[in-house]
Formats: sequence, C-alpha cells, structure tokens
Amino acid sequence: MTVQLQESRLARDFKAAFGAHPAGVSIITADSATGPVGITASSVASVSAEPALLAFSLAAGTGSAAALAKADSVVVHLLRVEDLELAKSFANSSSERFTGSMAWTRLDTGEPLLAHTGHALRCKVLSRTPAGSSLLLAAEVLEIIVAETCGEPMVYHSRAFHRLGGHSILPS
Amino acid sequence: MTVQLQESRLARDFKAAFGAHPAGVSIITADSATGPVGITASSVASVSAEPALLAFSLAAGTGSAAALAKADSVVVHLLRVEDLELAKSFANSSSERFTGSMAWTRLDTGEPLLAHTGHALRCKVLSRTPAGSSLLLAAEVLEIIVAETCGEPMVYHSRAFHRLGGHSILPS
Repeated sequence: MTVQLQESRLARDFKAAFGAHPAGVSIITADSATGPVGITASSVASVSAEPALLAFSLAAGTGSAAALAKADSVVVHLLRVEDLELAKSFANSSSERFTGSMAWTRLDTGEPLLAHTGHALRCKVLSRTPAGSSLLLAAEVLEIIVAETCGEPMVYHSRAFHRLGGHSILPS
Repeated sequence: MTVQLQESRLARDFKAAFGAHPAGVSIITADSATGPVGITASSVASVSAEPALLAFSLAAGTGSAAALAKADSVVVHLLRVEDLELAKSFANSSSERFTGSMAWTRLDTGEPLLAHTGHALRCKVLSRTPAGSSLLLAAEVLEIIVAETCGEPMVYHSRAFHRLGGHSILPS
C-alpha cells in the first residue's frame, strides 16, 4: 500500500517535471504491413553529426507506435509553427491520417513523407533498447530532405504549443 | 573522395536541421573518482511515467561526459530561465564548476545537487547503448526534488536561449 502510494507520487511529480520541460515537436513515419503509420513525438534528439545519428523513444505497446517500433527505416519530420495542425492530427490516435486531403508522398525507398515546413530525415534504425514498456531507438540518418521554405520554430510545453522568435529570445 | 564530400554535406544538413530544432535544457551531474562532474545537455527526454524513466545521450569520449558515462547514478536538473548562467557554465568545458561560489550540495546518496529553479531527478542508469562514438542512456528516476520556486520555462534554439510564456503561446 505504501509502495503504491509512493509510486503514484513519483509518477505525478515526474509528469509535472516533464510537463514543464519544453521540447521540439516531430512526426515519425514509417511504412508498415497495414500501410503508412505515424505519430507526433517530443523525444527526438540529436546524438552526433558524424556519423549522423539521432534517438527517440516509443511507447511501443499498441497502435501506430507498435507498428513504428517494428520498422527498419523511418522518416523523422522536424516540425515548425506552420505544421501545427499536422502535429495535432498525429498526436491524436483517433484522427484520420494519410487521407486524400493530407499532402504526403512516398520516397523512392517507400517511406511516407509528409509535406511540412521543416527538415525531414530518412533514418535506418540501429538499435531498440527496452526501457520499461517503452523502447529507446537509435537511428542513423541516411538522407535529409531540406525544407524549401523553413517555417518558424515551434515548441511543446505544458500542453500548449509555442512559437519562438525575436519576442522570446533572452539577452546573451 | 565522393563519399567524404557526401558525408560532409549530410553532417552539415544534420547540424542545420537540429540547430533549428528547439530543446529544453538540463544539467546532468554525477559523482566521479575525481569529484563531482556535470554537463549541460539538450537531449534529456521523458520515456515513461510508470515506471518513471528518462533517456539522454552523451558524447562519451573525453572530459565530463566520459566521467558521467561511467556513473551508476546521476542527477538530471531541468533548467529554467533563472538558471541561464548555470546552463552556460556547464556548457563550456573550460568553465570552473562546483566552485565555492556556486550553490551546490550533495544528496544523502552522494550525487551533486545544484541549486536551480526547476525539478531535479535522481536516477539510476539502466542501460548504455553505443551509437557511433556516443552513448544512449536509459535511466530510472528514483527520487524527484521538487523546486520550491519554479522559474519560467527555457528553450535552446539556434545557439540562443529563449523564454516561453504568454508572449510565445500559439492559439489552440
């Protein structure tokens, strides 16, 4: 009983801590046995530039995340303010995705590429390390599709999206 | 020769992509054989709340990151705007750290805790997965030191620090 209470408090403090920790927003897509899948993620991080490596985590139990966890290659779309609706669609598991009205295509290598205003990084998954019921993935970037028009930077924080710019910069 | 040129372009595009991808800012500390060590990191991400797990990466070749990579337990300090000078100190390998003028203490378990205005998470390292010359670490949160006064949220983007607030929020 005591242990359970302590665990709940830890989980509550953990959610408060990371709820207040801002993060960039990405959509990760892949092809799967049942067609294209994708999720909005705030865990994508650069690991090294040479070789070009990144990391992200997936709650890989069910749904799109489970399908992504099995993929050998993924596309990481770094999102900008102009991609806000896309971010919301892929954050909500009941939203329709890859519909006719959503601008997307397939790369020559088969992975789904969403039209957006940030960079897209086609990656080969290198490792999947279990962490609780989630997976921590490391991936090598094979190709970068550079945005033609790069939008404004966007951040997720305390269940809201924010725009960065001259108005938010701190004096150095 | 061609391969080398392509790699350089990939690395350049990769740096541009992640340079434009905002991230929250943390300092990770640990005790080491040569005393307390710490680095500023933008790769800390939540993995799951129950169990409370997080992930981060380290360029573990030399210096403080190499010492951190060996630690069994670390403290992840989630930073706020009021912690800007601390973030800069621990981002610069030539800065003096854990000096008499820097407010820090040791937890009962020995890890160094920096006075700051965000949450601090004492963690046990669960796994270290090699990714290039870096390591991807998963860690279990054992204890959360909740900030008495929680500052304003801070983000690192394009080599500058930003403050989030009402001025930066996007209409939902």
